[in-house]
Amino acid sequence: MKVVSAIKKVPGDIQMHLQTKFSDVTFVFCHGMGEAEYYLEEADVFITYGEDLDAEKIKAAKKLKWIMVLSAGMDRMPFEEISKRDILVTNVRGIHAQPMAEYAISMLLQVSRKAKTLLGQEQKEEWNRRPVMNEISGRTMVLLGTGAIPQEVARLAKAFHMKTIGLSKSGRTRPHFDKVYPVQQIDSVLAVADFIVAALPSTPDTKHMLTADQFKRMPKHSIFLNMGRGDLVSSEIILNAVRGGEIDHAVLDVFEEEPLPAGHPLWKEENITITPHISGISPQYIPRGFALFEENLEVFLSGEGTLKNIIDPKRGY
Amino acid sequence: MKVVSAIKKVPGDIQMHLQTKFSDVTFVFCHGMGEAEYYLEEADVFITYGEDLDAEKIKAAKKLKWIMVLSAGMDRMPFEEISKRDILVTNVRGIHAQPMAEYAISMLLQVSRKAKTLLGQEQKEEWNRRPVMNEISGRTMVLLGTGAIPQEVARLAKAFHMKTIGLSKSGRTRPHFDKVYPVQQIDSVLAVADFIVAALPSTPDTKHMLTADQFKRMPKHSIFLNMGRGDLVSSEIILNAVRGGEIDHAVLDVFEEEPLPAGHPLWKEENITITPHISGISPQYIPRGFALFEENLEVFLSGEGTLKNIIDPKRGY
Repeated sequence: MKVVSAIKKVPGDIQMHLQTKFSDVTFVFCHGMGEAEYYLEEADVFITYGEDLDAEKIKAAKKLKWIMVLSAGMDRMPFEEISKRDILVTNVRGIHAQPMAEYAISMLLQVSRKAKTLLGQEQKEEWNRRPVMNEISGRTMVLLGTGAIPQEVARLAKAFHMKTIGLSKSGRTRPHFDKVYPVQQIDSVLAVADFIVAALPSTPDTKHMLTADQFKRMPKHSIFLNMGRGDLVSSEIILNAVRGGEIDHAVLDVFEEEPLPAGHPLWKEENITITPHISGISPQYIPRGFALFEENLEVFLSGEGTLKNIIDPKRGY
Repeated sequence: MKVVSAIKKVPGDIQMHLQTKFSDVTFVFCHGMGEAEYYLEEADVFITYGEDLDAEKIKAAKKLKWIMVLSAGMDRMPFEEISKRDILVTNVRGIHAQPMAEYAISMLLQVSRKAKTLLGQEQKEEWNRRPVMNEISGRTMVLLGTGAIPQEVARLAKAFHMKTIGLSKSGRTRPHFDKVYPVQQIDSVLAVADFIVAALPSTPDTKHMLTADQFKRMPKHSIFLNMGRGDLVSSEIILNAVRGGEIDHAVLDVFEEEPLPAGHPLWKEENITITPHISGISPQYIPRGFALFEENLEVFLSGEGTLKNIIDPKRGY
């Protein structure tokens, strides 16, 4: 039994650990698809980011029984060929929840507790205790979406004794939310928010979903944070809301145009904090992906238990 | 029955709330002791920060039965006179736990996730996704002290799936700590820390407690945070540890000399973050203090239940 990995830079300790633990399995750790191609023919299991496979490669991989995709996006997978051969596909859905939740809490703390002002004072060697550091504890957070990522944000928010309100299509109850409402009620829900956190994927429903009028409904002291997709709301609406004092601050990790070009007015706004689409990036990504692979490999080899994150190749998710 | 408060700037909604809820009680909200003095003679209950009372004033306050001190420090209280008269004293012990815990988590996130670098990039309008944002999740936190403040830090750390290790005189188990060791074992415990958080009061035992050798035992990637008292460790030891790469970063809210004078070498060190003794400051301080007073007033008036944070005037705590 042979496992071939096309993932670049898998740390040595992870390679060692797997080879020691599964001594009957041969592991080939390749530095990308260019190298992995040569081993595909013998692979029973293939580990990939999923963007480097095509129907030809699947055909060449005659013995392939399982593809572990170390990504949550599956847009480029040749599902037709995979489906014909009945090859098992699993992914790492949910792997972004932890870093993105940390990002959200971290940025809300940074803005509420005046990190920029305090770092500025430090640079000037100025001892000044007047900046008002607002606590995030006990505030009300409204989350757009109630999936794995918003749930993890809400879990941390509850640790800070926040009230957590979710908005979703169904309005169904979810763990770590005090209340979930159907998205039709967004206007009234936004009015009670101290923090509005958006972590929605881009779909026809979410594209330009937030309107200028909705920003007017948010409290003047509120902080809006978007780490989902940039097309949720136009830059112009955000700029106007911040400039007009309709909200206190916007934290943006995603944009209509990425990279956000130098000279764009969003960069210059004092009450907008920009990060370069990094909320989901983490040094723990590969370790976490391989930990999930390891769990699944045990199930795959023993036939006992259930594999996590199985993808239906007919639906693509 | 008359309650006199010497606390400046008590928000109107708090005054209104108390006056409405306790309609049989007369409240006099004064702007400091200068004004409150005139009402002391008639006061049954007195609310104070505790640094403005003396034996004379206690003598003048003939009807006084209860002093509510809106502070945790009681150094300047005239306990001898209070003790003679059998006046009840309560304080707001524990009120700093929540803002200080937020401070600690906020600063560890700020340093780990490279906030300074990212804010610098933003200023230059530079889209650069390379800064490595380390997660705080799953790391090991060593806390010096296991009282109310370290416990609240540990509680939040557990929400981030951290391992929490406490050091205390007794080594006794405490909530939210995975392990507590007696302080004699500090050397071996420091060696496993990703974060070292100190929130110790200043006592003969803690003065210059941390040695240069102990900083050498901390891992090179570790972050040291002190929000207790500045005399826990000399500035020189911290400077040498950071300059020598023995630790990655120090976050300091307290100093041997406060205010930290402009020109002090601590200000200039890239891997030391300075805040001006603000970890315990919060806009929630007065609301929280009065919420505790309200609870106690109910008990005081009804005689049912137990007053919180009663101080023994003979011991002073």
